Amino acid sequence: MAKFYGVGTGPGASDLLTVRGKEIIEMVDCLYTPESKKGGKSLALQIVDPYLSEGLTIKQRHFPMVNNWDEKRSAWNEIAEEIIADVKKGLNVAFITLGDPMVYSTYSYLLERMTDKIETETVPGISSFCQISNNLQIPLVIDEESYAVLPATADEKVIRTALEQISTIILMKVSIALPKILEILTDLDLLEQTILVSDSSMESEKIMIGLSDLSEQDQLSYFSTMIVYKNRKLKGSKKDES
Amino acid sequence: MAKFYGVGTGPGASDLLTVRGKEIIEMVDCLYTPESKKGGKSLALQIVDPYLSEGLTIKQRHFPMVNNWDEKRSAWNEIAEEIIADVKKGLNVAFITLGDPMVYSTYSYLLERMTDKIETETVPGISSFCQISNNLQIPLVIDEESYAVLPATADEKVIRTALEQISTIILMKVSIALPKILEILTDLDLLEQTILVSDSSMESEKIMIGLSDLSEQDQLSYFSTMIVYKNRKLKGSKKDES
Repeated sequence: MAKFYGVGTGPGASDLLTVRGKEIIEMVDCLYTPESKKGGKSLALQIVDPYLSEGLTIKQRHFPMVNNWDEKRSAWNEIAEEIIADVKKGLNVAFITLGDPMVYSTYSYLLERMTDKIETETVPGISSFCQISNNLQIPLVIDEESYAVLPATADEKVIRTALEQISTIILMKVSIALPKILEILTDLDLLEQTILVSDSSMESEKIMIGLSDLSEQDQLSYFSTMIVYKNRKLKGSKKDES
Repeated sequence: MAKFYGVGTGPGASDLLTVRGKEIIEMVDCLYTPESKKGGKSLALQIVDPYLSEGLTIKQRHFPMVNNWDEKRSAWNEIAEEIIADVKKGLNVAFITLGDPMVYSTYSYLLERMTDKIETETVPGISSFCQISNNLQIPLVIDEESYAVLPATADEKVIRTALEQISTIILMKVSIALPKILEILTDLDLLEQTILVSDSSMESEKIMIGLSDLSEQDQLSYFSTMIVYKNRKLKGSKKDES
């Protein structure tokens, strides 16, 4: 029976997809991919490019990144209905989403519009911060440690409490709240315990270890993540050099 | 040049390895795998079984799971030295570890003994809680939400603060601290907001949605994880039925 698959592409490198995700992309009849700006190139589509079969129908669809929820809901409704119609026609359909589908993904809104109408399956992906720690080979957590993942746009009190209580703190989407984050990290003397990575596992990847030289005016890539490693000595940070 | 690779196997299903992890397993000359009890079967090895090449040397090594740190350190030293010797001989060597190598893995201790002596690369894996949320298709986090990952053995105050401040809380290794966790979840009225999964993505997988019927005397598999979803309505929980 035809089915819908949501597949996490991982952070950026094609071979960081799961084997299951790759095999689903190779098998489906139709692939939906998000396009952040109208006419913009889909990063998710570039990631799965090596796995696209001949004769595959690719449907790049626009997801508005705006504060107007009515506009967003109307786009999700439309795309969900189109996918449901494709599956009911007998097509196997996949939707690709960056990182993991269950972590800050618009995919969640699409999925909830489909689960009671067609058969759905969701395949995990590697989150960017997970690839960052593996690439740098600095453990996120060992033994009794804990880690937390927060959007930089979260309530300041929640971010401060996490930084005080939790061993390793991952801050997502830091490009849109940089001044606030730098102020908090300075206050808590954590600048040199922090790693900033933009475009993890992509060709444009940039890594900064210790943030004393970062200014709140600096422009960061949208795909920028910080890892605050309270319990590690970071090689290459100013603390390490001194 | 010969190299050492640490590869995360993911939670249990062979096709939840990354493509990169699979290709490394297929390529290496020698594969080290942990064996929790002497003579015990390695779960990590079962997961990568479809990717083992002919002529591959498999070295199952014992990692003591004891409180005696001297005994553990001595085992890590010995295994690290053996791997270093293999790589220096010109062999490509992999070590496999469950889930992600940077999340609560003994692999961290092995790695720190090797990084300045041979070339090393670490490949991420899907964490069990990540597969659980994808399998159940219940998002870990959306929008401004946050999530935290804690060992059930962590300090009670840290667990309580996380449960109060963070939207979604993942508790690992719950089998060894079940009475404490059930008491905290009861106190905070979160029993029916919690999902318990044992042996995620394996044949023996068990899922419990809402924990009012769980008793502190219940014996759980070592691979048991709880996800406390404070912001979701859980289908199948007692709250949902009422």
